[in-house]
Amino acid sequence: MSSTVEDHQFMARAIQLAERGLNTTSPNPRVGCVLVKDHQIIGEGFHIEAGTGHAEVNALNSLDDPQAAIGATAYVTLEPCSHHGRTGPCCQALEKAGIARLVYGMSDPNPQVSGRGLKYLQDRNIAVDGPVLEEQAKALNPGFIHRMVHQRPYVRLKLAMSLDGRTAMASGESQWITGPKARAQVQALRARSCAVVTGHTTVSMDQARLTVRDSELPKIPLQPLKNHPVPGRLRRPLRVVLDSNATLTGHEPFFHEQSECLWVTAGAKPNDILPTVEWKSLPDVANRVSLTDLLDDLAQRQCNEILVECGATLAGAFVEQGLVDEIVVFIAPTLMGSEARPLLALPLASMSEKVELEITDIRSVGSDWQVIAKPKAKN
Amino acid sequence: MSSTVEDHQFMARAIQLAERGLNTTSPNPRVGCVLVKDHQIIGEGFHIEAGTGHAEVNALNSLDDPQAAIGATAYVTLEPCSHHGRTGPCCQALEKAGIARLVYGMSDPNPQVSGRGLKYLQDRNIAVDGPVLEEQAKALNPGFIHRMVHQRPYVRLKLAMSLDGRTAMASGESQWITGPKARAQVQALRARSCAVVTGHTTVSMDQARLTVRDSELPKIPLQPLKNHPVPGRLRRPLRVVLDSNATLTGHEPFFHEQSECLWVTAGAKPNDILPTVEWKSLPDVANRVSLTDLLDDLAQRQCNEILVECGATLAGAFVEQGLVDEIVVFIAPTLMGSEARPLLALPLASMSEKVELEITDIRSVGSDWQVIAKPKAKN
Repeated sequence: MSSTVEDHQFMARAIQLAERGLNTTSPNPRVGCVLVKDHQIIGEGFHIEAGTGHAEVNALNSLDDPQAAIGATAYVTLEPCSHHGRTGPCCQALEKAGIARLVYGMSDPNPQVSGRGLKYLQDRNIAVDGPVLEEQAKALNPGFIHRMVHQRPYVRLKLAMSLDGRTAMASGESQWITGPKARAQVQALRARSCAVVTGHTTVSMDQARLTVRDSELPKIPLQPLKNHPVPGRLRRPLRVVLDSNATLTGHEPFFHEQSECLWVTAGAKPNDILPTVEWKSLPDVANRVSLTDLLDDLAQRQCNEILVECGATLAGAFVEQGLVDEIVVFIAPTLMGSEARPLLALPLASMSEKVELEITDIRSVGSDWQVIAKPKAKN
Repeated sequence: MSSTVEDHQFMARAIQLAERGLNTTSPNPRVGCVLVKDHQIIGEGFHIEAGTGHAEVNALNSLDDPQAAIGATAYVTLEPCSHHGRTGPCCQALEKAGIARLVYGMSDPNPQVSGRGLKYLQDRNIAVDGPVLEEQAKALNPGFIHRMVHQRPYVRLKLAMSLDGRTAMASGESQWITGPKARAQVQALRARSCAVVTGHTTVSMDQARLTVRDSELPKIPLQPLKNHPVPGRLRRPLRVVLDSNATLTGHEPFFHEQSECLWVTAGAKPNDILPTVEWKSLPDVANRVSLTDLLDDLAQRQCNEILVECGATLAGAFVEQGLVDEIVVFIAPTLMGSEARPLLALPLASMSEKVELEITDIRSVGSDWQVIAKPKAKN
């Protein structure tokens, strides 16, 4: 049996549920689950926080009568796990509950376990269909998938510019290019990230803190789910500053925030490190912190999505080294002129060297515009 | 009596008809007319070419039986003329035909005659209602309106850039930033313009011709109208090159095209002018052709919309002097890097000097994006 229109509808609901964990599940993936019997939804759940129940278990627990699951179909956005993690394998929970059929959104992106959960269920005479709405299911977890496949986080580069591609006046003056709605959108990008990465000039010159300000996050009103644990707490991103030569004092506003921060140098040791600040030296490339080593380090910290918010130099380096997976550009309806600072320090000589992008989304955000682009793989 | 839902529907049709004259009516405005009796369209017309029938007359002539107009309502996108031009006043034609009611889209933008046509009809007991869909009616004729109100053409600046705001590599290499659909859209912008203005470097370095290539214009299939003259011929825009110091040879490809061209210098006299080329010297400002004198000259030539297609220097000058009414930017999905040439040579020092824009439209054009922006009036 293959997937039906109804399967797509219920999977779409499971994806909606998974999105509720956008800012809370990391380092785990966002997963949603819907239980259906006689064409009716009987249970719903999503993964809330690492260390708490997986989506499947939360959906089963939402049933008033556990017997109701017998013969039901489970829609899960991600292949159920078959390994014993902190919460026990979901495959076993679905089997024990009496599920007759599983419809999955995408298979497990970890090549070492992919397909095992599906096989576990098939071996026990549970029908398995999928993938259904695979593209949308994958879009829930770009970072988790990227880390499982490439052992590196998914790198999102955020830029804000005038229509003529400038990020600051020659003097460095840049506040504010974009309006309040675009800035709230940046807060949302921070909130879903495991780490926010910046450079030392942004921390010293712009006095940037790179925290998530809860009051500025876009508000999305949601119906509470029946018998479901309350939504989790925002998992605050690790704030990372690259400061190859340890030029920061250690007392910038960045270092005085409550949420975790990491001070990365390339060999140099800062003079003064507050007790709440983690310092780490990474290998250098031409006296700059090696960005690949940085990404490897963040992957070891189980970072799924990272947000890079910085000046033209560091942004240009990320792009030039082909390390950016997604560029989010906020375009303000202004012209800042040709003396103003460029978007990216990216010295290219001929048209053949230009970086080709695919623009995947463009939309208005207040009076500004948000463009999402993905660098195309070089031939 | 005021306007009804039906009035809006018939005016929308009149606007559609007017758009058929987009590339042919200049220096006249684009105008459409619908005749309605018993809630049915009985006649339709639009203005095709200067020197031929106005929209109202063409609509009346489309009737199989002229008596049918008696008691009908005429929907006209622009207030009917009351003066004797090359074709006689339309007000009189509507009156003679026995029209009982006029619904107009916008009043005449010429302050010297505005309202006269409406009054002529009211004085003869013909009901007059409007404006209806005024904003859309005005959008048909930004150039004609601008010339009537300000005695200057409407200046549209076309730019093409990479996502990081660059128009050419440092070497000058720029072909092609955008794809074929964006370039076809530029052809459409040229075709609707009365003049295309460029600078001498574009003519010498890029070997630009700035002609309208009919084969590249977007094709818009249209139903022929009953009893209506065949569509007019494209009115080819005057091609204008600004060459303050007469540095061009006069034998660039630009000067070897059939459509009219104008070679503008600031005092200097070219050595070699082909007989098909018009040369004119205009006053200078700091050794550059005075752009306000240029616009005044083009207004005297009855230019409604002009398209400026040029390099960063001239484009920056137009913007800096506040002479641009609309900016059309084609954004290609590429990064050209920080060594590449800027969009506009526009030296601004502080954020307070930035040019504020209103983005009025943004849409995909093939793999590129087209942004339309209008500079906001400075306080």
